[in-house]
Amino acid sequence: MELFELAAADPAVRFSPNCWRTRLALDHKQLPYDTIAWHFTEKDRIARSGQGKVPVLVDGDAVIHDSWVIACHLEDRHPDRPSLFGPGSGRALARFVNQWVSEVVHPALSRVLVPDIAELVAACDRDYFRSSREAALGTSLDALRSQRDAAIATLRAVLQPLRSTLQGQTFVSGSTPLYADIVAFAAFQWARICLPGDAALLAADDPLRAWLRRMDDAFPQAAQAPGVRERF
Amino acid sequence: MELFELAAADPAVRFSPNCWRTRLALDHKQLPYDTIAWHFTEKDRIARSGQGKVPVLVDGDAVIHDSWVIACHLEDRHPDRPSLFGPGSGRALARFVNQWVSEVVHPALSRVLVPDIAELVAACDRDYFRSSREAALGTSLDALRSQRDAAIATLRAVLQPLRSTLQGQTFVSGSTPLYADIVAFAAFQWARICLPGDAALLAADDPLRAWLRRMDDAFPQAAQAPGVRERF
Repeated sequence: MELFELAAADPAVRFSPNCWRTRLALDHKQLPYDTIAWHFTEKDRIARSGQGKVPVLVDGDAVIHDSWVIACHLEDRHPDRPSLFGPGSGRALARFVNQWVSEVVHPALSRVLVPDIAELVAACDRDYFRSSREAALGTSLDALRSQRDAAIATLRAVLQPLRSTLQGQTFVSGSTPLYADIVAFAAFQWARICLPGDAALLAADDPLRAWLRRMDDAFPQAAQAPGVRERF
Repeated sequence: MELFELAAADPAVRFSPNCWRTRLALDHKQLPYDTIAWHFTEKDRIARSGQGKVPVLVDGDAVIHDSWVIACHLEDRHPDRPSLFGPGSGRALARFVNQWVSEVVHPALSRVLVPDIAELVAACDRDYFRSSREAALGTSLDALRSQRDAAIATLRAVLQPLRSTLQGQTFVSGSTPLYADIVAFAAFQWARICLPGDAALLAADDPLRAWLRRMDDAFPQAAQAPGVRERF
């Protein structure tokens, strides 16, 4: 399988949270894959997927986009490998966590990280990234940068349901990490790669830190990937 | 079993979302129970639970409070009855939905409903309700009433992960409703009892309406309980 992943100016650094979902899903299912560095402006290289965003997974004849669709594809195509969802309502409920992370956590994190991502992206992507993000967020990157402390406070508040859930159980999915943990952890991978060294995303005593350490233990390849720092 | 439930001035009307969680859980598990009308200021009547809030479930020698703890108790004590969580990660992931509804949806709904609940509560609760809620929300009920349209707009935005999840599947829990559906539906039971007739909680074309109709079909006793109106 080949996974097209968003790459930074340093092509070994892969910061996209949606791409991390797919990479972690492949690791969880213990499936071998090659990753291909891709940049925002290289739409032509993934045109056969019928759209312009990564992750794009090439699995034989299938060219699949959208991290959720890819997760379902991997689960259904490789039922003999460790399950991403488990039995019963596992897939349906993981979908809710997926949507909460995509629609609540990612937007809140964007307002923290986007000014720093602008420094991280490849030269060919720089103008595209700035203009598309300023249009999407309705403000300039400089204005966002000056509001980072407030954006971090908002993010910490937004994470409360995840925090309180993990105060009573080992993983979001129970005793072992499944896809719901992966989508939440993927957002933190994004943050720990993009956030400058002087900023802390979580309070020092945030109970989420213990879960993040457990996720690092469960996914050592992710914890040690290029550009990934220990801190959150 | 006996379930202590918060009651309105009309004792047949039970509006608390946390009590609806327990009632729906009992209905789902097809367990017989009696309900006992209780008012905010009757702390002494539930003192044996060791705290002052409902729902309180009396099950033989056990006196249990907290809707989540009650749900787990029912599931563990009656494994032969229809499951609230299903196998695998069902219970752990339902906990996340439970926390999201409690910590995000309920506060947003509070700001819509509290002025109208003040009119609904029993005479003995009126002063207690007004002063405790004004302190908790940091504003007067009259000020809240004047901001209801804005509070409804905020609520509709907050419901987005539930909405987008249900655009791709029949229930939050998949093909049949389980406890994650119950906790979300319980919040809507609260709203449809307390919201005045001139206000619509959801837009006319909100995709959540189809799921709410399915929940009404799955829980006809709840849909037809005293004070419950058809509209959302």
